[in-house]
Amino acid sequence: MGSRWKNNANCCASWTLSLCVLVSLSICLSRAEDSGMENIVTEKRAEESHRQDSADLLIFIMLLTLTILTIWLFKHRRFRFIHETGLAMIYGLLVGVVLRYGIRVPRDINNVTLSCHVNASPPTLLVNVSGKFYEYTLKGEISANEVHDVQDNEMLRKVTFDPEVFFNILLPPIIFHAGYSLKRRHFFRNMGSILAYAFLGTVISCFIIGLLMYGCVTLMKQIGQLGGDFFFTDCLLFGAIVSATDPVTVLAIFNDLQVDVDLYALLFGESVLNDAVAVVLSSSIVAYQPQGDNTHTFEAMAMVKSFGVFLGIFSGSFALGVATGVMTALVTKFTKLRDFQLLETALFFLMSWSTFLLAEACGFTGVVAVLFCGITQAHYTFNNLSPESQDRTKQLFELLNFLAENFIFSYMGLALFTFQNHIFNPIFIIGAFLAIFLGRAANIYPLSFLLNLGRRNKISPNFQHMMMFAGLRGAMTFALSIRDTATYARQMMFTTTLLVVFFTVWVCGGGTTQMLSCQHIRVGVDSDQDSSIGPDGIERRSTKHESAWLFRIWYNFDHNYLKPILTHSGPPLTAVMPACCGPLARCLTSPQAYENECQLKDDDSDLILNDGDISLTYGDITVSTDASGAHTSSWPVATATTADELDRELASGDHELVIRGTRLVLPMDDSEPPLPGDGQRWRSGALS
Amino acid sequence: MGSRWKNNANCCASWTLSLCVLVSLSICLSRAEDSGMENIVTEKRAEESHRQDSADLLIFIMLLTLTILTIWLFKHRRFRFIHETGLAMIYGLLVGVVLRYGIRVPRDINNVTLSCHVNASPPTLLVNVSGKFYEYTLKGEISANEVHDVQDNEMLRKVTFDPEVFFNILLPPIIFHAGYSLKRRHFFRNMGSILAYAFLGTVISCFIIGLLMYGCVTLMKQIGQLGGDFFFTDCLLFGAIVSATDPVTVLAIFNDLQVDVDLYALLFGESVLNDAVAVVLSSSIVAYQPQGDNTHTFEAMAMVKSFGVFLGIFSGSFALGVATGVMTALVTKFTKLRDFQLLETALFFLMSWSTFLLAEACGFTGVVAVLFCGITQAHYTFNNLSPESQDRTKQLFELLNFLAENFIFSYMGLALFTFQNHIFNPIFIIGAFLAIFLGRAANIYPLSFLLNLGRRNKISPNFQHMMMFAGLRGAMTFALSIRDTATYARQMMFTTTLLVVFFTVWVCGGGTTQMLSCQHIRVGVDSDQDSSIGPDGIERRSTKHESAWLFRIWYNFDHNYLKPILTHSGPPLTAVMPACCGPLARCLTSPQAYENECQLKDDDSDLILNDGDISLTYGDITVSTDASGAHTSSWPVATATTADELDRELASGDHELVIRGTRLVLPMDDSEPPLPGDGQRWRSGALS
Repeated sequence: MGSRWKNNANCCASWTLSLCVLVSLSICLSRAEDSGMENIVTEKRAEESHRQDSADLLIFIMLLTLTILTIWLFKHRRFRFIHETGLAMIYGLLVGVVLRYGIRVPRDINNVTLSCHVNASPPTLLVNVSGKFYEYTLKGEISANEVHDVQDNEMLRKVTFDPEVFFNILLPPIIFHAGYSLKRRHFFRNMGSILAYAFLGTVISCFIIGLLMYGCVTLMKQIGQLGGDFFFTDCLLFGAIVSATDPVTVLAIFNDLQVDVDLYALLFGESVLNDAVAVVLSSSIVAYQPQGDNTHTFEAMAMVKSFGVFLGIFSGSFALGVATGVMTALVTKFTKLRDFQLLETALFFLMSWSTFLLAEACGFTGVVAVLFCGITQAHYTFNNLSPESQDRTKQLFELLNFLAENFIFSYMGLALFTFQNHIFNPIFIIGAFLAIFLGRAANIYPLSFLLNLGRRNKISPNFQHMMMFAGLRGAMTFALSIRDTATYARQMMFTTTLLVVFFTVWVCGGGTTQMLSCQHIRVGVDSDQDSSIGPDGIERRSTKHESAWLFRIWYNFDHNYLKPILTHSGPPLTAVMPACCGPLARCLTSPQAYENECQLKDDDSDLILNDGDISLTYGDITVSTDASGAHTSSWPVATATTADELDRELASGDHELVIRGTRLVLPMDDSEPPLPGDGQRWRSGALS
Repeated sequence: MGSRWKNNANCCASWTLSLCVLVSLSICLSRAEDSGMENIVTEKRAEESHRQDSADLLIFIMLLTLTILTIWLFKHRRFRFIHETGLAMIYGLLVGVVLRYGIRVPRDINNVTLSCHVNASPPTLLVNVSGKFYEYTLKGEISANEVHDVQDNEMLRKVTFDPEVFFNILLPPIIFHAGYSLKRRHFFRNMGSILAYAFLGTVISCFIIGLLMYGCVTLMKQIGQLGGDFFFTDCLLFGAIVSATDPVTVLAIFNDLQVDVDLYALLFGESVLNDAVAVVLSSSIVAYQPQGDNTHTFEAMAMVKSFGVFLGIFSGSFALGVATGVMTALVTKFTKLRDFQLLETALFFLMSWSTFLLAEACGFTGVVAVLFCGITQAHYTFNNLSPESQDRTKQLFELLNFLAENFIFSYMGLALFTFQNHIFNPIFIIGAFLAIFLGRAANIYPLSFLLNLGRRNKISPNFQHMMMFAGLRGAMTFALSIRDTATYARQMMFTTTLLVVFFTVWVCGGGTTQMLSCQHIRVGVDSDQDSSIGPDGIERRSTKHESAWLFRIWYNFDHNYLKPILTHSGPPLTAVMPACCGPLARCLTSPQAYENECQLKDDDSDLILNDGDISLTYGDITVSTDASGAHTSSWPVATATTADELDRELASGDHELVIRGTRLVLPMDDSEPPLPGDGQRWRSGALS
């Protein structure tokens, strides 16, 4: 996927091949007299270049360090109006200004650039310097008007990273972390709505923005404000790029304030999935290639092909991500790797990374595969890991996510000044802001209306306003827009996107607490409690009816078959599978499933048992559980969890919301065993 | 430092500059008829290249995954004869064989390489393809006989990484981890001996090997076995490269078997420091450049200059590493960052990384700086971190170290078959093995003899034999030798180095347990006990006399001034500093120092208190300690430590060695407060 774009830029300009076999040395080289001197010069130059690279990277590390210290100060003083990403951008901006206007690097006569005329641009170029061959690799295209700037702006160009760095190094940990930390219980409960927002909503938003921008661009052309080509496909691409929401700022505040878990799940789930949709959507739009010369007309065949590309890439990436996740789960289940935490963590990390590489090697989209891999790992593999590895992997990806995210945001700030080809067009910018607002509105409100027709637990208007407001744009939008900045249209899009990100992160991100109180959205909800208590304080025991059929079917299948196959938890497979599969079932069921199903914590269980003992007869299964069993088990994390819960209870302002005593939520009628508990007995016949 | 070498290769061959302004297209390109087609071809090619890169990286990830699974199996079955690094090499070898002989990639006519004649090799090349400019970056030189292989061996060349990857990405975490996990108490106690082995020993070994190899090379030249130039500087460089020991395999077994802590400290300390010495030594040898044309004669001036380079780079890197470590310690001391573990861990990681970049940007050696930064971080910053961050940082660097190390070792296996320019010369190889053996012997035995003259706690002959045997070569040796493989001499050195690494890791690494039992070295020693009990079972209370003056001076200074300034532990500065520095001392002393010095665990304290209460009058300070106070403190890690200790006691075979009861080791006469304990009181006047 990756590098295709870079070169695709060429499509937009037509160039003829020439057979020119002449090299013109555009810049006169000062030549050393003897080879020894020449060698030393080359050596010095390479060393200088390496030093420069280190210094450039150092700038970013320093920026991040500064951001961390400042954000600590803000957190320490309980300032909530700015998030670390917003702050990283501000510092990036400041450093960008300094680099742009403050530093003048003297032109080094030895560091000149040769220019040779050849007739193609292969990825590898061999240069024959009087019998010695040097290998060069293609870095990218430079626009003609930039060529003379190359030397002058060496400094600025140096701090400009290869856009593919974002896609291949920085985004994967962010996206994986998002998948890995998805609050799964609430995510699966709201799965239908989340999928609707993420798929339908993103497509709607993309086309609305695309159409509006096309109108805007046509207008600009008429009043002579457009300095280059801007096709309908460009508009659609812009729509796809800015449809990827990233409410990292909002969600951080939601976390701090413990906002309603369903709202959190909706927003987070949507933002995680719509990144995937936006990536695939934008590459399908790029893949839209009508036959013939006129590459920007509408053609049904090409349209269908693009749609096919969308489906193919999305499902392929999805399948790969899930497949690696499942493989990791199986490996961790059937080996006793948990005795060696370092090996376990390393394996987990490597397998997750290999998803990305595998997807890229197969021509799918790595970040999408990584997302679904993360979700699968969290849902299955996580349960097989030793408690230490659970902590380790969580903390590792949390750290990687933190670093990558802040790196991207500080780079964004920097790019506003150091990027050489900004095109600020006020009409386009105003049009874009308007289109994005309308696109978001056309996503949230109509879909919410439709979803509310089917949902028992309605998405209330204040939730809808909050979701509308939380349509921030972030890392993914930036990475998509910087991927290709070769043409006029793309440069204008990049500039506008940067401004959109800045605005939404600072204004919408900064105003989250105000918006929350303005919309009267309750805060201080214990996320381990579920939302079955309405704002009116009355417990609703109706989760089983609320859950959509999609969720119920999925939950049944997952709990009865997938969980037992892939993890140590769940009912023994011998109990749920038909008799004919007996040997297979015995082979796949882990010994723990028979012995101590209850020992294993199932984070995403829908059954929550609180203080006190429960003994209930359910169907013809007699289950007697002891909620404290979960804590008396040999798990070292158990105490930590309790402490956390206590913390949360103490921190939450609304103590009425925390229920003390027994509460049991039953999502469906059959085969739902309460998971945490000691004295549980299974009668296999009872399970269908 | 880094890139200098690559180009330095050119020194050894003389080439004349030409003014040729002609580009000859050495390979005929199949040219597409229209630009659209051409674009698609370029695009496909770039995409293909990206896919190939992903697939190549995937090979390594798969290799590592396989290694992890196999090593788990071995650990599970308690096979100790092979370490994960040795196994990684074997798998690398297998994949190398497959890549070399098994896969024939069809030559892609579109993936051809242009060759153009120009008269220099600048780091950046602009290629003008009919008006469009493409930017190419210098990858490196290709030897003339390789040019025609470029297409054929595209696959093999692709899996060959840029050697600088090892120095800039893989080695830093390994070296940092080594510094960060140095067993500091025993390290500082044996500091004198370790420094002697690392500095003197490495230099001795380097010159002995260099001289022996020069003899060998001279012999080869006389009998016509030498196919190219091999100068004395090359021999010395070889000596420096193979003088970097890396007994990772041995130390892993030492850890498992809990071998004598002093032997462990000597070996580990030596191997950590001699990496740094070898790096700097080899770059000094490369920097040896006599004036005039004859670049390989002896010249006193150039020799002195090289020595100056050695001192300059070493001390500069040392200073930088320590400076960043100290800065991190101060930042973590004076901010309350410990309330936010993610920020704390991220800051720690970034500051440690910035050491490397800073050193490289200043022209020093990054890995050396990172080593001393790691030691400083462990000694000071670690005490300021929150317990969670202590775990997190340890685990993070442990993981990074594990991944990087196994990656390097599996790459080594692969390189034996995929590297294109191996020169296997039996005489040179035999000579090298002999020289390395003699070089190691000339390092260990004479120095041990000299050190034993001054040491009360002698290094016994069986320890010396073990150290001799544990002279494994590993990651650093490999990274140094692959850094430059342009000339005949360097290629032969690279091949030989690979074989040395293979042999030592498999044979010496695999025979460690045999060697241990053969040398009657006691195992099962509790590393928290110190070695003040001789093998005869009689307790020696003489640590105070044993400690070298160097250690005592350092310990005093460190404990009375550095620790209080940089961490929360130690005596209040107001007590140890002269009265005139009162305000400064008050400002630098952390509030904790006054209140609860005892709460803070001081890992590297030389004072060990065991079960039972001690009350002793020391000087005019009345100190009454309660050893169990360390455990009753509020530290969450305390219980884990106790469990660990218990574990170790149970695991150790020699129960007689574990003393129950009171034991107190006093390393010096004045101002040594027992650190763990509750009822400690300070009278400031008592401390000088």
